[in-house]
Amino acid sequence: MLKHHDAGAEMVPQEGVHEVDNVGARLGRTDAWRKVTGQEQYMEDVPLVSQLWGKILRSPHPHARIRGIDVSRAESLPGVKAVITFRDIVPFKIGYSTHGDQFALCHDRARYVGDEVAAVAAVDEETAEKALSLIDVDYEVLPFVLDPIEAMKPDAIVLHKDKGTNIAAENHTEFGDVEKGFAEADHVFEDEFETQRQCHVCMEVHGCVANWGNDDSLSVWTSTQSPHIVKRFLAKAVDLPLSKVRVNRVGVGGAFGSRTDLFPHDVIAAYLSKKARRPVKLLFSRQEEFYASATRHPALVRIKTGIKDGMITTRHVTAILNGGAYTSQTGAVMGSLGWKASNYYRIENYRYDGYGVLTNTSVATAYRGYGGPQLGFALESQIDMIAERLELDPVEFRLNNANRQGDTSVSGSYFSSCELTQCIEAADRALEGEKPAGRDQGRGMAIGFGESGWRGAYYNNSDVSAATIKMNMDGSIHTTVGGAEIGTGYDTTMAQIAADALGVPIDQVSVHSGDTNDAAYDLGLYASRGAITSGMAVKLAADKTKGKLLDAAAKMLDTPRSELSIENRCIVSSANPNIAITMAEIAEHIYEEEGSAVFGTGIYDPQTHLADETGFHASPGGSITYPFCAVNLDVSVNRDTGEFKIGKIAVAVDCGKPINPAIVEGQIEGDVFHGLGMATVEPGLDYDDAGAPKYHHLVDYKLLTAADMPQIECIVAESTDPTGPFGVKGVTQLITSSVGAALANALNDAIGVRMTSLPITPEKILQALERAQS
Amino acid sequence: MLKHHDAGAEMVPQEGVHEVDNVGARLGRTDAWRKVTGQEQYMEDVPLVSQLWGKILRSPHPHARIRGIDVSRAESLPGVKAVITFRDIVPFKIGYSTHGDQFALCHDRARYVGDEVAAVAAVDEETAEKALSLIDVDYEVLPFVLDPIEAMKPDAIVLHKDKGTNIAAENHTEFGDVEKGFAEADHVFEDEFETQRQCHVCMEVHGCVANWGNDDSLSVWTSTQSPHIVKRFLAKAVDLPLSKVRVNRVGVGGAFGSRTDLFPHDVIAAYLSKKARRPVKLLFSRQEEFYASATRHPALVRIKTGIKDGMITTRHVTAILNGGAYTSQTGAVMGSLGWKASNYYRIENYRYDGYGVLTNTSVATAYRGYGGPQLGFALESQIDMIAERLELDPVEFRLNNANRQGDTSVSGSYFSSCELTQCIEAADRALEGEKPAGRDQGRGMAIGFGESGWRGAYYNNSDVSAATIKMNMDGSIHTTVGGAEIGTGYDTTMAQIAADALGVPIDQVSVHSGDTNDAAYDLGLYASRGAITSGMAVKLAADKTKGKLLDAAAKMLDTPRSELSIENRCIVSSANPNIAITMAEIAEHIYEEEGSAVFGTGIYDPQTHLADETGFHASPGGSITYPFCAVNLDVSVNRDTGEFKIGKIAVAVDCGKPINPAIVEGQIEGDVFHGLGMATVEPGLDYDDAGAPKYHHLVDYKLLTAADMPQIECIVAESTDPTGPFGVKGVTQLITSSVGAALANALNDAIGVRMTSLPITPEKILQALERAQS
Repeated sequence: MLKHHDAGAEMVPQEGVHEVDNVGARLGRTDAWRKVTGQEQYMEDVPLVSQLWGKILRSPHPHARIRGIDVSRAESLPGVKAVITFRDIVPFKIGYSTHGDQFALCHDRARYVGDEVAAVAAVDEETAEKALSLIDVDYEVLPFVLDPIEAMKPDAIVLHKDKGTNIAAENHTEFGDVEKGFAEADHVFEDEFETQRQCHVCMEVHGCVANWGNDDSLSVWTSTQSPHIVKRFLAKAVDLPLSKVRVNRVGVGGAFGSRTDLFPHDVIAAYLSKKARRPVKLLFSRQEEFYASATRHPALVRIKTGIKDGMITTRHVTAILNGGAYTSQTGAVMGSLGWKASNYYRIENYRYDGYGVLTNTSVATAYRGYGGPQLGFALESQIDMIAERLELDPVEFRLNNANRQGDTSVSGSYFSSCELTQCIEAADRALEGEKPAGRDQGRGMAIGFGESGWRGAYYNNSDVSAATIKMNMDGSIHTTVGGAEIGTGYDTTMAQIAADALGVPIDQVSVHSGDTNDAAYDLGLYASRGAITSGMAVKLAADKTKGKLLDAAAKMLDTPRSELSIENRCIVSSANPNIAITMAEIAEHIYEEEGSAVFGTGIYDPQTHLADETGFHASPGGSITYPFCAVNLDVSVNRDTGEFKIGKIAVAVDCGKPINPAIVEGQIEGDVFHGLGMATVEPGLDYDDAGAPKYHHLVDYKLLTAADMPQIECIVAESTDPTGPFGVKGVTQLITSSVGAALANALNDAIGVRMTSLPITPEKILQALERAQS
Repeated sequence: MLKHHDAGAEMVPQEGVHEVDNVGARLGRTDAWRKVTGQEQYMEDVPLVSQLWGKILRSPHPHARIRGIDVSRAESLPGVKAVITFRDIVPFKIGYSTHGDQFALCHDRARYVGDEVAAVAAVDEETAEKALSLIDVDYEVLPFVLDPIEAMKPDAIVLHKDKGTNIAAENHTEFGDVEKGFAEADHVFEDEFETQRQCHVCMEVHGCVANWGNDDSLSVWTSTQSPHIVKRFLAKAVDLPLSKVRVNRVGVGGAFGSRTDLFPHDVIAAYLSKKARRPVKLLFSRQEEFYASATRHPALVRIKTGIKDGMITTRHVTAILNGGAYTSQTGAVMGSLGWKASNYYRIENYRYDGYGVLTNTSVATAYRGYGGPQLGFALESQIDMIAERLELDPVEFRLNNANRQGDTSVSGSYFSSCELTQCIEAADRALEGEKPAGRDQGRGMAIGFGESGWRGAYYNNSDVSAATIKMNMDGSIHTTVGGAEIGTGYDTTMAQIAADALGVPIDQVSVHSGDTNDAAYDLGLYASRGAITSGMAVKLAADKTKGKLLDAAAKMLDTPRSELSIENRCIVSSANPNIAITMAEIAEHIYEEEGSAVFGTGIYDPQTHLADETGFHASPGGSITYPFCAVNLDVSVNRDTGEFKIGKIAVAVDCGKPINPAIVEGQIEGDVFHGLGMATVEPGLDYDDAGAPKYHHLVDYKLLTAADMPQIECIVAESTDPTGPFGVKGVTQLITSSVGAALANALNDAIGVRMTSLPITPEKILQALERAQS
């Protein structure tokens, strides 16, 4: 079933697998009023009494030994309440999963311009800034390395002596027989691509408010995607039992992967508060946000593809990712890139050689697509290059090789639903007849593949979400979920699922997320898992609650439970329409009989497989189910200036059942924004020869604005996936991975030159045109 | 088992029914550091951004018709953001249980000096005060009545026209045959007593911070004993579903019964915030705290007692309580007084005639003892008067008539444990030999009786508490309880119960109470129910958690579950000491296997009986179990000035098993403070002839200070009650009921005059001495 949407469309009547009021409806977001009227509480708005300002002293050198730090002048500045260095903290190594190699404050070495060396808390921001200038650090400047290829060489300067190498992670995995595949192929193509260090550029800067109580309990307010993950690792970093640490709900002003982990600033704020014995607010400046918060991994991707009888049979992907100064999620992103490459098309043989490399640059981490945008640009560009070389229609070529429902990929992912061919056809049709005439007009397509949840992040063999539903005495519903509303409409989606699972109107449902006190352990929002894992947890909790309600009603009404159902806030008998009670009546009755709320807890940990030592998963794969998409766009180019303009983008996505089409469209548009920014205007955080970052402000680091965005046609190629709640799949990331290649393919179609590095700028186009002419 | 305690005693090794580390130990309170270092957040400390100040315009007349209110001048004052009157609110009648008869703002009539007429929210307190002075109310002054006897007369002015009478509640119940009992008695005595309108005088004034969000959700911060009760009735008062209302945790600076209900100021703050679209903080001035927050019921108590063969056989109690302008808890307090009277001694026949009467005075509500102090002064004074008349030893007389374990009282209360005789003997022995010589020295005793929980408050047939325990991945324990830490050591007590039930050290346990988002519905803290009902809920939740832990450990260790137990943060096998894992290990294992926290929910609603229409209960009574006490004190009197000095007070209490002896002693001392204040220095909120309250400040309304407090010897006559967790019973209220009579009895012993009204002042003593001489 295909549904075309334009932004701003009216609410449409819902259809689908359930008789429902809310799931499938274009409901307004439950957080909308708070946000548009300025009532949402972000970190900056946390108003603790006697709050101090925290500031971090950062290394001005890309690589330096720290011979000593003298904080005495800073400590004696009036208004300064605490100054901390490595000596004040527990030597806990921050990182992702087991790959911790970063102290919250540098021990004896700084490894990038921006590395945390010391920190202060003072009565106001100005005093804190001044105190930073009074901290005397004795640096011994060391040689540094910015380029991962250089950093991989045997004689390269090594950032972490204990590792003995700058290769933080590598992966060499083969499925089938790649050499045999290439030997038997009719054609073998090998191409190389490069992508830049895209910055997340969240509208809300990173930071933390920490309050270390005199009872040795720690409360933090940090805009995180994963409150329980922050709690879990922060407790270790400050050496408190988990029962003494609370992560409180705040609004999240953009995340995109940059807020999944515990970061040094969270730990620093906590220790400043501990030492000062007052709450500390520590927020990045915009400049710090650029050079000291994490980024996407710059990547070199080489793809070798074997074709036999027009079918892709064999593929070998080599990727080198620049992880920056500390490992963070580099191993996982590198692994994900290789894993995704094995799932794009039906192939028989696959090999991956991946390298995550440390350099003296800022730390790279999760970013929308998680290896997908780097891969997608390469893989989907090469698809068109192959089609061109073999004189195949690129759309046909994709359709012939596309995955289909019921497939298991070469690396083991089972596609319980897959409407990829429908996506390709729909995206193709959407632009039919729209392509303007003229020699510098082009059209290009790229497909995308993504995950919905991910097993095994953060140590445990787990992909868990948790929800609890309590019924109030008036029949209204209190829903607690362990994730966080990070701007994706999570709370609204959960409310819709709870409302329909229980048969009550959405205005009777409240959703509380993001507070570790309320909710049970939940891994949070990443890997497009929110709607599916939290959604399933909410559904399970609601189903339990419904069961208890019907049990109680059967007893109260002296009617067989099998005859009862919930309809429009009432429990009614199918046998006798006169037998009916309201939800409020049954709730009050249960309070009378049992003393307290009907409630159900849903813990959902899907039946997926943990990766083995190769980083790949046995069937059904590490993800619960997999979304697919196709992006098709038109471009027109000015050959004199290299400038280009995108006419329209058609995005067709198989995201299962959209719980709320308006939210899905918001995700599609956001996905296009990040993909198109990476493909075009965003320069990436480049470094100069001295190892200093080139960009510090929104004036020089360009972003697309609303005015720059092309028309987007959102098409939902709805599948009915058997796994998620109401058949939902992830939708937040995969389109980002497709935009770069679609643009490169369209440009090649328009002007016959092939762009192999992102971003694609007018300058690069002019250079390519010149090369093509010469 | 008797235990004598002096305040400040060292920690003693615990003994008792369980092998435990925490229950029974004198642990420091978990909230102590926060409180003594000023970190506790009370209402005044709630720091919402853009917060306005709310102020209430109160009636200056004890009784007046409101012909009109003109708010236009107030509204036009710069800085005023909202002015509200009755027209702005839903006409919901606030009250206790089904007895609602008070609108949050007066409709067409004001009924006491202090009644809420209008309210404003402004940018600061001064502007709000000024705005009040600009509200023009057109009052028609009406006749008023202050005295309940006058108010009961047929021709009295009626406060609430729809009631047709000022008698808000009455109770006429008989058990056995009272007439026959008196006819068969050897002696019949009838005496009358009077008590004053004691004020709660909480150190933290009443008030509320309300934030009505633009998403039509309401958050309030109010220092309440019952967060869920406030939520439940506030939702009705502001016409929101319960899912949209949250009561947040704040510190409670004294409650003593004055914070169990929803009050007009909570509703007013909510409506001010709704109208102003900003948060509103509304805190009483100390003056308002005296005349516009609720008080204890002034009471007249007449007791007629029949004695046969030295035993009390028959009793008839008549009580008239002054309820003030609105019903509030008047019916329940009046009922409780009569019910308590039926339980003090073994009697065969009992009749109660109780009246709760409305007058044009401030509203009376729950106050430590809940009818007990008024009754106890009368009943236990009369016991000594009878003993004197019959020339019996008052201690012997009490012992002969005292209840014992296994008794069921004439009105149906079953005493599953009762160490009353031990209390009497211990309190008697404690002062032995200490009485100084001299003619104006005296000693007096009184016993006390109390409840532990109460079935059927707040509409429902319920006495429920709820708790949830989650286990963190490091084995530490997160405990959520539905009550509130109101200064009684509740959180600490719950932590001790959870720690021992699960076998972990207390520093691994956190307790979160007072937030309706965290916790399931729980009636809160009143009727001495916290330790027993919440404690039982925590124990049930912990036992479930323990069960899940042992199940998982049995599987993990491949050992029969019956061989496993928890010892010192480890699960160990009794069969093989080499089989042992830490709590952290089993927790992490369960997170691996099941995805999320082990947790258990405990809902405890005891097997007690709801009162019938008489207001009395079938066996085992409305309470789970019953504490008993005896108070014995020495006094010396100056016959020239009437001044008297209490030498020492011995308090022996059967409160079951003390979870924390230091907290029990704190409760005993607080109980003595309130009882002794009522007995001596507190004048009560008297009214002048114009119907205006006489006392407005701590300068004229006297309280005892630490320097005024006599030496208190705390004796715990420990019983092992089968009902509560670890055998606990209530301890927070019953001693207050005994102090007045013990003092009156001691004074009579010293100087031979009988004081029959509280407070007992030097003036009254001089007058009595004069009467006795003449």
